[in-house]
Amino acid sequence: MSMSADWLRDNCGCPECRDPHSGQKLFQIHELPADLAVAERTEADGILEILWSDGHRSRYPSAWLTAGAEPDDRTEQAKRLWQAADFAHGLPEADWQAYRDDPQERAAVLAAVQRSGFALLRGVPTADRQVLAVARSFGYVRETNYGELFDVRVEPDPTNLAFTSTAIAPHTDNPYRDPVPTVQLLHCLENAAVGGDSGLVDGFRAAALLRAEAPADFAVLTRIPVPFVFRDRGTELRAERPLIETDGLGRIRGVRFNNRSTGTLRLPAADLDAFYAAYRRFAAITLRPALQLTFRLAPGDCLVFDNVRLLHARTAFAQDGRRHLQGCYADLDALGSTLAVLRRRAAALDALEEMFEGEGAAEYLGEDVSMAEHMLQAGALAEAEGAPPHLVAAALLHDIGHFGGSGTELMRGRDNRHGPAGADVLARWFGPEVTGPVRLHVAAKRYLCAVEPDYLAGLSEASAYTLGVQGGPMDDAEAAAFAARPGAADAVAVRRWDDRAKTAGAPTPPFGHFRPLLAALMAGTAGGATM
Amino acid sequence: MSMSADWLRDNCGCPECRDPHSGQKLFQIHELPADLAVAERTEADGILEILWSDGHRSRYPSAWLTAGAEPDDRTEQAKRLWQAADFAHGLPEADWQAYRDDPQERAAVLAAVQRSGFALLRGVPTADRQVLAVARSFGYVRETNYGELFDVRVEPDPTNLAFTSTAIAPHTDNPYRDPVPTVQLLHCLENAAVGGDSGLVDGFRAAALLRAEAPADFAVLTRIPVPFVFRDRGTELRAERPLIETDGLGRIRGVRFNNRSTGTLRLPAADLDAFYAAYRRFAAITLRPALQLTFRLAPGDCLVFDNVRLLHARTAFAQDGRRHLQGCYADLDALGSTLAVLRRRAAALDALEEMFEGEGAAEYLGEDVSMAEHMLQAGALAEAEGAPPHLVAAALLHDIGHFGGSGTELMRGRDNRHGPAGADVLARWFGPEVTGPVRLHVAAKRYLCAVEPDYLAGLSEASAYTLGVQGGPMDDAEAAAFAARPGAADAVAVRRWDDRAKTAGAPTPPFGHFRPLLAALMAGTAGGATM
Repeated sequence: MSMSADWLRDNCGCPECRDPHSGQKLFQIHELPADLAVAERTEADGILEILWSDGHRSRYPSAWLTAGAEPDDRTEQAKRLWQAADFAHGLPEADWQAYRDDPQERAAVLAAVQRSGFALLRGVPTADRQVLAVARSFGYVRETNYGELFDVRVEPDPTNLAFTSTAIAPHTDNPYRDPVPTVQLLHCLENAAVGGDSGLVDGFRAAALLRAEAPADFAVLTRIPVPFVFRDRGTELRAERPLIETDGLGRIRGVRFNNRSTGTLRLPAADLDAFYAAYRRFAAITLRPALQLTFRLAPGDCLVFDNVRLLHARTAFAQDGRRHLQGCYADLDALGSTLAVLRRRAAALDALEEMFEGEGAAEYLGEDVSMAEHMLQAGALAEAEGAPPHLVAAALLHDIGHFGGSGTELMRGRDNRHGPAGADVLARWFGPEVTGPVRLHVAAKRYLCAVEPDYLAGLSEASAYTLGVQGGPMDDAEAAAFAARPGAADAVAVRRWDDRAKTAGAPTPPFGHFRPLLAALMAGTAGGATM
Repeated sequence: MSMSADWLRDNCGCPECRDPHSGQKLFQIHELPADLAVAERTEADGILEILWSDGHRSRYPSAWLTAGAEPDDRTEQAKRLWQAADFAHGLPEADWQAYRDDPQERAAVLAAVQRSGFALLRGVPTADRQVLAVARSFGYVRETNYGELFDVRVEPDPTNLAFTSTAIAPHTDNPYRDPVPTVQLLHCLENAAVGGDSGLVDGFRAAALLRAEAPADFAVLTRIPVPFVFRDRGTELRAERPLIETDGLGRIRGVRFNNRSTGTLRLPAADLDAFYAAYRRFAAITLRPALQLTFRLAPGDCLVFDNVRLLHARTAFAQDGRRHLQGCYADLDALGSTLAVLRRRAAALDALEEMFEGEGAAEYLGEDVSMAEHMLQAGALAEAEGAPPHLVAAALLHDIGHFGGSGTELMRGRDNRHGPAGADVLARWFGPEVTGPVRLHVAAKRYLCAVEPDYLAGLSEASAYTLGVQGGPMDDAEAAAFAARPGAADAVAVRRWDDRAKTAGAPTPPFGHFRPLLAALMAGTAGGATM
């Protein structure tokens, strides 16, 4: 396999090269020797090890070496380009309550915005400023000259056509901003007017059609910067960007289309002719009926859409008809992050579930229950006693450090430090209110042995055996220091459930029972955390 | 002159084509006939008039036709590329108080950020969250995963190297965001550490040097999208953008440079070699001592800089030294708008001053004072009586509708409606609290004639003459309706100063005396407005 030496070294994952906490690179590219070369390479057990000419050693999993490129979520590569008929059986939509309460539903909505460019939330409370809560459910509100939010209804002396009852052709918003807001939300509070329907057009699809039908026109629209302008008493915005943005590899990654705000191009006449011919052709494509998805927003609907891809439109409506939308802007990067984190959390829960069902069926260090039974019993005991969610989770997951084969090391007389190890794994997903008691549950055993005369006698045989490996009972100074730690009480509580969770054959709920609680803790939306 | 017909028509400024309120275009490009052509063209008195093949008529000032392109403020075209020696005599800086109080100082600071990429505010109160007030003085705070603001100081368990005492090489922030925040602010609250100095490098200059020295490397860095990644427990951001962004005309318009967050490129080996060679060369340029501007932030300093152009750095500092910065992000578009509006307001005040000094010296409709003397007297009378700023301004500017030659029309027996005309001109700059009394000051005369028996007798001869042209005294119904208008009292107050401001030879302050008051009213920062 031939590969770039600089590339390989730049991706070294050792703790000298990458901060273990943040994952950030610790060296600068210029710090690598100009004549960097591979001195020795060995490949074994799925690991490529390189000794570099400067003496540094790097290790790369073979699977990592051969991995393909991740698709760029922001280009056409990762999108589902559509026309209206693709939604003949319904729009991507969800109920607000389900979206709020169910991470899977939330992920589906955000994935629709990322893939198809839009999603519709139904049943969003028709309250003033509620649209901001929708935006904050996945990202950050982008304030503009229109304020934190804007009201779309008829205004007496409008500075923008959006605030009249006129029909508005498909367009993107705020083209005169740079950076342009990449997400728009429109929340319908009232729509009793005749007319005022909503339309959406996939601008990426329109651009892809232009590229297929008239490549030279496509090239013109990706090349020529168009000035977009907006001005009122307190604002004077101007941005020069092409109508179609492509990346360096030629992939479509943005559309900016708004005839109302197009300023004056100043180019040689031949370029103007080329631009206007291409602009006319592109405009005509955006108006093809096959591309126009039309629907009507009802009170409580909130449309969330990609403002650098989708063109939105509205039909004219009767001036005296009551129609009131509230809108705001946000950005795709935060939306994508929220979606990635939701997926990562779902994958983590899947992995935990798999552990419970796979490895977890193994013997639990000489006890009469399996590891999974032990932990499920501990979680169920905590739950039955009305413990707050973070302690139910800590009880359920306290022995996760035994997984991955290290549990057997403990039984061979070497402390695998399964409390800290488990806490470190869990810290990728849970806060200190969960990881703290997991980290300290072995220390809590040593503490209880010191302060409660009967405690040691009540331990199971196996647990009494491992106590020695783990350092034995604490002395008075250790016990006093432990008791003074902020998380001591939680750790002791988890320890007591741990000790009782060794009943052979006791029925427990399956792991899936705890998923919503774990998901809420991961998201920081579970109540009752005290640390 | 040869010019594109589509372009010309697309720029028609008639009220059918452009909304007179918003200046937005009212037609779509596809609505123009495909075979649009010029049927007739005539050019006279500096106006080109076109009769189009579809019967539409357009008029274009010749000066507009031949105007050049406005520079794009966001590309290298509008920038002053620099190296450290260019600031040997000092940094672009201003005192916070002067920045806050003086529009000219504020414009100078914002212009420095736009042109040179940075400016330093001194004496910003070292209060928690004050950095947000600085950002809001020219734009909107961009919230990120770090919060509305972030604290840069040593953290116990950092997810980002910024929060350690390590040295950090020149970089741009948040490269894993798209859109990336385009402005960064760093406000120094405390800096007693040994080390921890700040550095800036002009990334556009570095990119321009790369283009000059190694055009092929420059091309590679503008073409290849680089993945930037950031992940912590609640965040998973990824953006793929080139290190150097150019527009369709090849002009540099952005730099994104951050080795810490650079992810794994997946490209054919030849492309990787080309990329790494170019990346090394560019990195070496950014580190040239001649490019490194180094200085030390003192408590109260707030650095404002362009995060898509400037690379910032800091030297290492002693872990136990107290160093605390607060930072936040904002965007260049709002900054540019604020600057443009400040300049537009300054130009408007210049134009008013010129009117007072030029045309204003002309005879005032048969009175013994010039127009300028009359208006300055009215403004001075209002000020002497302690009137709120908006009424001083209204008194000063009430007859502005006479300017531009229309005053003489009134004397020829045709009402030039100088109240409404003046109000319309002023509405570009002032709110209704100023324009309202201007609009109504003639109506107030007709009202006072109706309700105060002695009022008519006190009018000057000329004013009594014009009363007839203006409609004569109001009848009872008109007077009652007028008195019920919300701005009636203000209009009457202005009217009374107007009537008294006709004293030949009375000394007045010059127009310049009123500029700060007018500037504050334009900015909406003057107290005392009541409407």
